[in-house]
Amino acid sequence: MELGRIGAIEGTTGCARLALTDDDKAGRDLVWTWMDELGLDITTDGIGNVVATMPGFDPAMAPVMTGSHIDTVATGGKYDGNLGVLAGLEVIETVLTSGRELQRPLAVGWFTDEEGARFPPDMLGSLVYVGGMPLEQALEITDDDDVSLGDELDRIGYRGAAPTPGRVPHAFVELHIEQGPVLEDEDITIGVVEGVQGISWTELTLTGQSCHAGTTPMRLRHDPGYVAADVTTFVRQLTADLGGAQVATVGAVTLTPNLVNVVPSTARMTVDLRNTDDEVLQLAETRFRGHVAKVAEQEGVGVETRTLARFEPVDFDARLIELVETGARERGFSFKRMPSGAGHDAQMFARICPTAMIFTKSVDGISHNVNEYTEPIDLEAGANVLLDTLLALTEMEFA
Amino acid sequence: MELGRIGAIEGTTGCARLALTDDDKAGRDLVWTWMDELGLDITTDGIGNVVATMPGFDPAMAPVMTGSHIDTVATGGKYDGNLGVLAGLEVIETVLTSGRELQRPLAVGWFTDEEGARFPPDMLGSLVYVGGMPLEQALEITDDDDVSLGDELDRIGYRGAAPTPGRVPHAFVELHIEQGPVLEDEDITIGVVEGVQGISWTELTLTGQSCHAGTTPMRLRHDPGYVAADVTTFVRQLTADLGGAQVATVGAVTLTPNLVNVVPSTARMTVDLRNTDDEVLQLAETRFRGHVAKVAEQEGVGVETRTLARFEPVDFDARLIELVETGARERGFSFKRMPSGAGHDAQMFARICPTAMIFTKSVDGISHNVNEYTEPIDLEAGANVLLDTLLALTEMEFA
Repeated sequence: MELGRIGAIEGTTGCARLALTDDDKAGRDLVWTWMDELGLDITTDGIGNVVATMPGFDPAMAPVMTGSHIDTVATGGKYDGNLGVLAGLEVIETVLTSGRELQRPLAVGWFTDEEGARFPPDMLGSLVYVGGMPLEQALEITDDDDVSLGDELDRIGYRGAAPTPGRVPHAFVELHIEQGPVLEDEDITIGVVEGVQGISWTELTLTGQSCHAGTTPMRLRHDPGYVAADVTTFVRQLTADLGGAQVATVGAVTLTPNLVNVVPSTARMTVDLRNTDDEVLQLAETRFRGHVAKVAEQEGVGVETRTLARFEPVDFDARLIELVETGARERGFSFKRMPSGAGHDAQMFARICPTAMIFTKSVDGISHNVNEYTEPIDLEAGANVLLDTLLALTEMEFA
Repeated sequence: MELGRIGAIEGTTGCARLALTDDDKAGRDLVWTWMDELGLDITTDGIGNVVATMPGFDPAMAPVMTGSHIDTVATGGKYDGNLGVLAGLEVIETVLTSGRELQRPLAVGWFTDEEGARFPPDMLGSLVYVGGMPLEQALEITDDDDVSLGDELDRIGYRGAAPTPGRVPHAFVELHIEQGPVLEDEDITIGVVEGVQGISWTELTLTGQSCHAGTTPMRLRHDPGYVAADVTTFVRQLTADLGGAQVATVGAVTLTPNLVNVVPSTARMTVDLRNTDDEVLQLAETRFRGHVAKVAEQEGVGVETRTLARFEPVDFDARLIELVETGARERGFSFKRMPSGAGHDAQMFARICPTAMIFTKSVDGISHNVNEYTEPIDLEAGANVLLDTLLALTEMEFA
C-alpha cells in the first residue's frame, strides 16, 4: 500500500509509475530502503535491474532467485509486478527472522521496464539480464518523446556497475497476479503456471495523403486511418478464424492531424498477437501481414512495419512446476495448471535456469487498470507457496 | 505571403492559426492594420467577427459584403479563407484608388472560427452573425483543454461591442479556393458555386472495459477501439452503397490509454458525412447511427453521441450565380457551375441575404494541408471576378 501511494492516480486505487520516470525512481528508492533495512547485498546493473541477496554465503554459490518488476502501465494497479517483488522481500525477511539456516542464499530482484509501456519491448530489463539483448542496444531505445532509456537511467541515478548478462541463478520463481479471469471464474486459489504465451508486437506506420474531408471524392482518397480501421477489424476476425488461445489487440492508434474535417496523413497503430502455440502464432502473423499489404495497396497507402517485440511461447521447468503444485497442495489451497496469457520476467530466466511461476487471483480478471485488485487472503496464499517453493529449491540440486 | 508567415509551420509553406490562439490574434492584428490603413470603419462583434466598411455613405444603407475567415486548421495552408478576406480588401482598395463613386458601400469581414478545428461547430462566427446561434451559447463552447471560446476572446482582446445578429448586408459574395481537384482536372479557371453540401458531424464517445491484452479471452472483451474501427469501415462502405456525392470521413480517433498491451477503456471518434442531397444525407445518418448502436451492443460497449455540426445543403441565389458567371465570361475565363464540397461562411449569409461564391483552382486539390497552393494567376482571376460581381451588386436592387 505504501509503494502504491507513489504515482497514485487521484480518485482511484491505481497508480502510474512508467519506467524511469520520477515516480518510478521514487518507487525504486523506497523498495531499495526496504532491501537495505534487511541487510541484503544490493547490486544495480547497467540497465537498472536491482538484485538483493542474503549475505553470509560463499560468493560462488548461485542464489535461488525470485522477483518481478515495480514499473506499471500509465493506468495500472498496485499488484502487477509489485506483488512478486514485495512477496520475495517478505519471504527473505521471514527466513532471516526465523533464524533458519539455508544451504543457498535467496535473492530478490526487480527488473527495469517490464511493461514496455514506455520503452518497447516489454520485459526489457530481464531480457538484458539473461543476455538476450546487448546492453548498448537497450540503452539507445527511445520513448515517444525521443528520450533514450540510457539518458533516463542516468537522470534518475539507476545506471549501475553490475555486469550484464547477470549472474545465473540456481533457479528462478516469480509470484504474480493472474491478470485474467480464469482463477476467479473457477474459484481456484493458486495458478501453477506451466508456461507463457508467445507474443508478437508490431507497430505499423501508415502514410497516406491528407486532404479536405468535404471536397475529396472517395475514389481519390489515400486514407491511412481507414487502413488502420480495416486492419483492426481484420485481426479481430482472425482470432475467430484461428480459435483456441489466439488473441489479438489493437491498443494504440494515433492519427495525424486527428481533426474532424481532415483526412489523416498518417496513422500509427500497434497490433499485439499472442498464442501458446508458436505455429499458430506464426500463421496469425503471416495472415495479418498479408492483409496489411493488400489493404494498404488498395488504398494507395504506404506501410512501414516495425517489430516491437517477438517472444516464442515458453515452457517452464517440469521439476519446478511440480514443486509449486506440491506447495499449494500441502498448504491446502485449490490449484490448477495453466498457461500465462501475459509476458513475465520469469520467461526470460527460463532461458538460463530452471524457472516457474505462481499465480494468484485477479478480481474480475482486471489488470493494467486502476481497478486491479487481489484480496489480502490470496496475496498471503501466493506468498506462502512462494516461501515453500524457494525453500525447497535451496535444497534441490539439478543435473 | 505576409499573413502566411504568422503561424508558419517550419520546413513547409503551410501555417497553423487555430481560432483564438496567439497566432490567430497576431494574424487578426495584421489584417486589422491593413483595414485601418484603408480608412475603413471597423467593427468587432461579440464573437470576434471583424467587418470593415467603406466610409461616407448613409449609415442606413446596407453594404454589399464580401469576406471569409483567417483562422486555419492545425496543418493548414495560406489560402483557405485568407484569400477571400485579402481579395475583398484589394477590391475595396482598387475602388478607393480609382475614385469611382458607388451607390452602396462595400464591406469586407472575417468570421471567427470558421474551421471549427478548435471550437466546434465550424462556421461558428458567421452562424452567430446571422442569428443561427445565441451569442451566449457560442461563448461557452470549449476546446479539448476545456478552455472556453469566450475566455479566449477576452484573452486576445477580440470580444467586441457590435451586436449579434449583425447587420443584414444587401448581398454577400465569397471568393474561396476550391479545396478539391475538380477545376484543375477539367482545366477550368472559375468555379461558379451553386450551393454547398450538407454537413453532418458526429462525435462518438465509446466506453468499454480496459483489460490486459494477453490474459482476456476475446469473448470477454468490451473493446471500444474495435467498435471505432468497425464504424470507420462501415461508413466507408456506406459511401459505396449510397454512391453519388456522398462522402464520409473519420478524421479523429483517440483511444485511452492508447498502449500496445492494454485493451482501451474508451474511444472517442468523429464522423463527417456530407451530401448535396439532404434526403440521402439523412439516410446516411440513419444507417450510420443504426450500425453504431448494433455493433456497440454486440461488443457490450456504451455509446454517447454528440452532434458537433449539422447543416442542410444550401442553394445560392440564382441572380448572383448568374452575375458571377457573367463576370467570368466577360473576363474571358473558362468557368463551370459546381457545388461546394466544403462548408463556407457564405452559406450562413445565404440565410439572410442574396448570396453566392466564386472558386479558384487548388493545385492537386490539396487543402487543409501545408502543401495547399493556388497559382498567382488564378488568385488574380478570382479577385477580378469578385471585383466585377461586387460592383454589379452595388447597382442591383432585389425585390
